[in-house]
Amino acid sequence: MFPLVQHLNLSRSLLFHRSSSLCGNLFAQNVCLNFCCFSKMKVANPLSEVGHFAPTTRLLCGPGPSNAHPRVHAAMALPQLGHMDPEFLAICEDVKKLLRYTWQTEEAFTIPVSGTGSAAWEAAVANLTEPGDVHLVFVNGYFGERHTDMAGRYGAVVKQVRKPYGETFSLQEIEEAISANKPDLIWLCMAETSTGAYQDITGVGKICRQHNCLFLLDTVTSIAALPCNLDENLVDAAYAGGQKCLSCPPGIAPLMLNERALEKLAKREQKDIKVPNWYLDMTMIKRYITAHGGARVYHHTAPISMMYALRESLSILAEETLEGSYKRHKEVSEFFWEKLEEVGLEMLIDDKEKRLPSLHSVKVPEGINAAEVLKNARVNFDVEIGAGLGELAGKIFRVGLMGHNCRKDVALTVISVLLDGLKKQGYVVPAKKA
Amino acid sequence: MFPLVQHLNLSRSLLFHRSSSLCGNLFAQNVCLNFCCFSKMKVANPLSEVGHFAPTTRLLCGPGPSNAHPRVHAAMALPQLGHMDPEFLAICEDVKKLLRYTWQTEEAFTIPVSGTGSAAWEAAVANLTEPGDVHLVFVNGYFGERHTDMAGRYGAVVKQVRKPYGETFSLQEIEEAISANKPDLIWLCMAETSTGAYQDITGVGKICRQHNCLFLLDTVTSIAALPCNLDENLVDAAYAGGQKCLSCPPGIAPLMLNERALEKLAKREQKDIKVPNWYLDMTMIKRYITAHGGARVYHHTAPISMMYALRESLSILAEETLEGSYKRHKEVSEFFWEKLEEVGLEMLIDDKEKRLPSLHSVKVPEGINAAEVLKNARVNFDVEIGAGLGELAGKIFRVGLMGHNCRKDVALTVISVLLDGLKKQGYVVPAKKA
Repeated sequence: MFPLVQHLNLSRSLLFHRSSSLCGNLFAQNVCLNFCCFSKMKVANPLSEVGHFAPTTRLLCGPGPSNAHPRVHAAMALPQLGHMDPEFLAICEDVKKLLRYTWQTEEAFTIPVSGTGSAAWEAAVANLTEPGDVHLVFVNGYFGERHTDMAGRYGAVVKQVRKPYGETFSLQEIEEAISANKPDLIWLCMAETSTGAYQDITGVGKICRQHNCLFLLDTVTSIAALPCNLDENLVDAAYAGGQKCLSCPPGIAPLMLNERALEKLAKREQKDIKVPNWYLDMTMIKRYITAHGGARVYHHTAPISMMYALRESLSILAEETLEGSYKRHKEVSEFFWEKLEEVGLEMLIDDKEKRLPSLHSVKVPEGINAAEVLKNARVNFDVEIGAGLGELAGKIFRVGLMGHNCRKDVALTVISVLLDGLKKQGYVVPAKKA
Repeated sequence: MFPLVQHLNLSRSLLFHRSSSLCGNLFAQNVCLNFCCFSKMKVANPLSEVGHFAPTTRLLCGPGPSNAHPRVHAAMALPQLGHMDPEFLAICEDVKKLLRYTWQTEEAFTIPVSGTGSAAWEAAVANLTEPGDVHLVFVNGYFGERHTDMAGRYGAVVKQVRKPYGETFSLQEIEEAISANKPDLIWLCMAETSTGAYQDITGVGKICRQHNCLFLLDTVTSIAALPCNLDENLVDAAYAGGQKCLSCPPGIAPLMLNERALEKLAKREQKDIKVPNWYLDMTMIKRYITAHGGARVYHHTAPISMMYALRESLSILAEETLEGSYKRHKEVSEFFWEKLEEVGLEMLIDDKEKRLPSLHSVKVPEGINAAEVLKNARVNFDVEIGAGLGELAGKIFRVGLMGHNCRKDVALTVISVLLDGLKKQGYVVPAKKA
């Protein structure tokens, strides 16, 4: 096989160089190099081993990434601008405006972070935590554990309020925990991607102000699917991911720090204590990402193509309007639950008001091997459905109907594909009730 | 103008929803929403303000990003796989193999980091620095200052050896500094993007082993343009960016930690001291990115489309072969220098052996306003050329002829565009010498 692949490589190489503008002389020499390179380098050319890049097309209905909108992929295919180009900085400004609309906040410091959702999360933690600060973490799923780990690394004293995975916290429970623990910051997840539970945040911000603590909100799976209304809810800091209901690939992530949060950061600056994370230091990044009349100062090279992707995904959302997106997520999820019920499948969360409209936890029926069902979906239908995490491993399927994939045809596809796998293990759809 | 834009939005929204599979009922309701949304939300829909996304096409010949290869943009336009999909994990394995070839290393821990080059850099620092460690930084440009800042945040005692911007260090100078300072880690930049100086690294690794310190190498602007040969040069840790000679957009970045580096990390693990950076904690990421026989453990959602981009860019490099890429960068840079000389322009670095083949520092002629020349290039020709940084601000133009843009036609374009701006300020090309 080796000589054949080498021959193919050569053909592709010929094409490549012919289309570039190199002189014929160099071209001829490269042909020679192509024939003898495998022996000259200590670490051999792996081209014959890795082959041509041809990834499978999958329908992504797990906890994320969800399929990006085709227009978002098209935006990434556009040639890049430089990160100091005035036109690129104007694109950043557009992204900030669109993010403010999406989150319903007027806070100036609403920006894209150069990493995936976890990077935006760590940006909030790194910039808002001083050693000894008390963080109160409401843990009802996998991601509460992550905040505990992350905040601990920045010297926070982390206190947890725990509930079984899938349950949520009442306002009274939240208030009592804040009163008892006197935190500097609380962390709450609006949409627990590990369980599908919706945490109502009404009134939480007011309690935080009464107790003089910051309110950090995880909106990774709620943004664009549920009203986050950051200003109305008195949220001090929030982050999200692009790869869920925004129909953008992972690699760039929204972050908001309001005036109260920035004040905390400014106090640290006055004390001349640097943020213990260079890449995510918002005291430096603000000199690049916000103009404030002065010149933009280079910090790191922004991920240009990902910025294009986010710009386009937020445009698509603004075209549909926030209300349109909320309505679609609501209608499609209700349709999905109804169709699930018709084939005898149950949701982990019984109360419809406490279910997310974006991420659905479907109980694995008795005696069914969940992993086999998911493998059947992937291998035979190119559909990705998510597995349970942590204490819910093997007990639930996690179905994401998010952003561009939040459509009734996708909902039906997922149910059909799940049923195919279930029936292969002997599952029988219950007879219709009279 | 507002009603017109609103009308346009509606048309685009119609198109969007018609192509999706929503029912006619929802579609009709959305039309209604489109007309009344602007008044319902506290933060207004900014669509009419930000308009349609249509970035300009520029030729990027600054210090990076450079234009990505069209095939790389095409790869980003492909639908994504999930980050836990076995096929995606196989793509990560391909990327690791291709990176090992590119850097000429057999080290297993040669991985893509989910951020831009600075994130890979900070990953090296965060994982290899324990408080009190002595870092010896060889500063001959802007990026030495960055390492000083970054390492300080992780508790390193940073000692600098300084040279004027543009100069490089001899092996003897390096050895003397190591002997005198007894560092735990040295930082050296192979290709200083702020000056265009090439730092020879031959023999440095051996000295580091003799003095029992780690050798951390910046290869951001040297990867694929100059032989890094990490194993042969006994480099213990290295990082790079995708947006220079790899013809990939920024947003994913190579990192290598060899056995000596991983041993340092393992010792920290044994002491149960967590890496003070969650997103870049390689003790956790290794359980996702390397198999080691066991199951892959989710850490954060990898930037899927950026992984596709890097996969394709490294394939293109392997097709050309490393030798081919080195040769092309060498020949094009020599051609560029010759043509520059013909129009009377001089390089900052006199000695050709000490110049990079990827990033060229061209002296700004006496009496010329550099910023005006760069603005003329951008505004009138859509060509980006870089400005001087730090103490070289206003004194040099920085010309990147990197990766896909390292071509003779691009070299001629840059010179023509520079000349146009220079002549507008009265520059006269010197008469040919006899």
